[in-house]
Amino acid sequence: MTAAFRPSGPRSPDGAVRQENLRDLNLEVVFQRILGAGEPISRTELASATGLTRPTITRIAEELLAGRLITEKGVTHNGRAGRPRVGLTLSDQGPAGLGLDIRADGLAACVVDLTGTVRHLTFAPARYAGREAGAVLTELAGMARDAAGAVAAKDLTVVTTTLAVPGPVDGGLVRSAPALGWRDVAAGTFLGDLGLATAVDNEANLAALGELYAADQGDDRALDSFVYVSGGLGIGAGIVLGGRLMRGARGWSGELGHVTVQPDGEPCPCGSRGCLQTYASTAAILGGEPVPEGANPDNVITERAEAGHPATLAALERAGTALGIALSGVLNILDLGTVLLGGSFSLMSSWLTATVKAEIDRRVLTAAWAPVTVRPALLGPDAAVIGAALTSIDQIRQRPTVWLARQG
Amino acid sequence: MTAAFRPSGPRSPDGAVRQENLRDLNLEVVFQRILGAGEPISRTELASATGLTRPTITRIAEELLAGRLITEKGVTHNGRAGRPRVGLTLSDQGPAGLGLDIRADGLAACVVDLTGTVRHLTFAPARYAGREAGAVLTELAGMARDAAGAVAAKDLTVVTTTLAVPGPVDGGLVRSAPALGWRDVAAGTFLGDLGLATAVDNEANLAALGELYAADQGDDRALDSFVYVSGGLGIGAGIVLGGRLMRGARGWSGELGHVTVQPDGEPCPCGSRGCLQTYASTAAILGGEPVPEGANPDNVITERAEAGHPATLAALERAGTALGIALSGVLNILDLGTVLLGGSFSLMSSWLTATVKAEIDRRVLTAAWAPVTVRPALLGPDAAVIGAALTSIDQIRQRPTVWLARQG
Repeated sequence: MTAAFRPSGPRSPDGAVRQENLRDLNLEVVFQRILGAGEPISRTELASATGLTRPTITRIAEELLAGRLITEKGVTHNGRAGRPRVGLTLSDQGPAGLGLDIRADGLAACVVDLTGTVRHLTFAPARYAGREAGAVLTELAGMARDAAGAVAAKDLTVVTTTLAVPGPVDGGLVRSAPALGWRDVAAGTFLGDLGLATAVDNEANLAALGELYAADQGDDRALDSFVYVSGGLGIGAGIVLGGRLMRGARGWSGELGHVTVQPDGEPCPCGSRGCLQTYASTAAILGGEPVPEGANPDNVITERAEAGHPATLAALERAGTALGIALSGVLNILDLGTVLLGGSFSLMSSWLTATVKAEIDRRVLTAAWAPVTVRPALLGPDAAVIGAALTSIDQIRQRPTVWLARQG
Repeated sequence: MTAAFRPSGPRSPDGAVRQENLRDLNLEVVFQRILGAGEPISRTELASATGLTRPTITRIAEELLAGRLITEKGVTHNGRAGRPRVGLTLSDQGPAGLGLDIRADGLAACVVDLTGTVRHLTFAPARYAGREAGAVLTELAGMARDAAGAVAAKDLTVVTTTLAVPGPVDGGLVRSAPALGWRDVAAGTFLGDLGLATAVDNEANLAALGELYAADQGDDRALDSFVYVSGGLGIGAGIVLGGRLMRGARGWSGELGHVTVQPDGEPCPCGSRGCLQTYASTAAILGGEPVPEGANPDNVITERAEAGHPATLAALERAGTALGIALSGVLNILDLGTVLLGGSFSLMSSWLTATVKAEIDRRVLTAAWAPVTVRPALLGPDAAVIGAALTSIDQIRQRPTVWLARQG
């Protein structure tokens, strides 16, 4: 009897290359090459890069063009002598991914095309106090339909939808989202019944993916491992390791808000004591000071801090220290070199960054020889909805054959 | 210009299936099938499971048999009528993996065969105070040679070697191993110069892999995500997620000993304050009480606890509380359902488990609907050396073609 033995993890048992799969596999290989090229690539270059024959490349290119996954664009000179060649590149028409986000201050929708470009982004202010989850989700479904309609005019077809929610998610079930007053809300089923098949995911996870994308788009392509921390009414973290989101064993990773900072600290609604939330949530930083009717609490905090309001500055110092302690634990455990301050924390980063960094330098063992970078996230409050849209379109990018099969 | 965009992580750019690679790929697919079967599998069953032709299977089987990767064993009846068939299964002769471990109390060596069975395990007590790293490594190389010689008599050839050390490792460089008095010791290069090409890894990581293997061997095959925590002079953690070891961005994950438990606690030699180490290392639990000359400190602690020694019982309670707080942070961040208490903690688990569990139940957000299991590790002090040997042989299990190429 052989042991199940798996130090390197399970290998897919259905990895056998049968002849009938080779066709799909080659199509995906060619598509990944076009996707990875970053600029138009000719059929000849594709043949040489993949080792496939020229007729095979020609057939696959026809299939991808017909399915609106790629388009012919310009000519490439291939850096050599000879006649110029037609380039193939990802299509900005065809399949699109929709992202939805239930933020503390309202609802957002975003559509990206296959190239990962944002083609549509809308936001509707909303308040949740006293509103039923069903009413909020119905409003959101309306926004989704409007978004799909708006991009249809640009020849884009929304294929997949992902919803971001501020709390742990179990399949389509939102276990707990205190900022919305939700507990065990079957958001996926509800939207499905409205005809909008939707994956549901944690907002910090999706925002981390949005930031990964933004880093790639900008000058930070080397960034492939980091912790993104989202401040606000609740505090969550999204962890990216080697370019991949780490979701934990059951998808509930990143509950940074409930990491203990002070074992005998203030009680937290979760039942524990001294959670990061009790120091660094928006409510904790406000410290009971009233917020003018209709004002955004984050703006109230930053305005007071800019005006030198002593209690606010002290609260930000306390929040930064607590955040630094909690993040040091994450970094000691996970060995990450970068912290991105997102959500409310990105707005408050002028007052938080140095304090957070000082705690990390003191408390992370490897910081002595491998310094940690702490900086504000790039996308601001849109990170999660953009990450959700990118997650949606990524399903087509990873498995173009699924889209082609639906075409017909 | 297409974005680099990578929500699902980088796809290997050299994934193209060329005809010349298909031969190796099919061999690996067949080998993985035999490996995963758990019992002898016939050529006919292999053909049907992989979709490959019978002549291809026959050719591959010949190649694997000649390379001593598999062996013919017994007959299978395939659960149907018809004549019995010869089964193919992993060989317990041929390539073998060597593991080495520098434990707090001495040196250990272990050899496993391709089936993952331990074929050789030796231990030599050693003390490190005042000894140079070179002398320790030279002694270890001697043990490695003896182990390879001993298993050669069983027709096993040691192909790959992995060394476990108690501290963060950077390539072959041991950054810091306070239990040995090491700092920046180039253990990999040193052993290489002695003719023993060796991968170097953190002992908690390797012990976690050993425990994954032990769970598979026993009745706990469902266990594929857990945190293994190793107690002793230092405290480390190995994190397994979905059957894979999580090493962190630079391989320095799992520094649980330096997670802050009490921000203003006792100073730690690392420069921080209130690290888990200051509550739960062997020295912290002993609390300055003298240990008789030559006695194992872990045994001194458990003997005192069994005798009801009040200071020792109080120290274990304090250690368990601190360990529970630090682990709650890990579980909130990583979403794991199982904690394995290893190293010294496995010996002390009678006094630690309930306290650790109580802190986790109080401090982990998802524990309310997804209870966490806390139990002693199975392999005891041999976990790391067995994990090291399994990691070695796993290289051949994952890439049998590498071994075949070396055979000529």
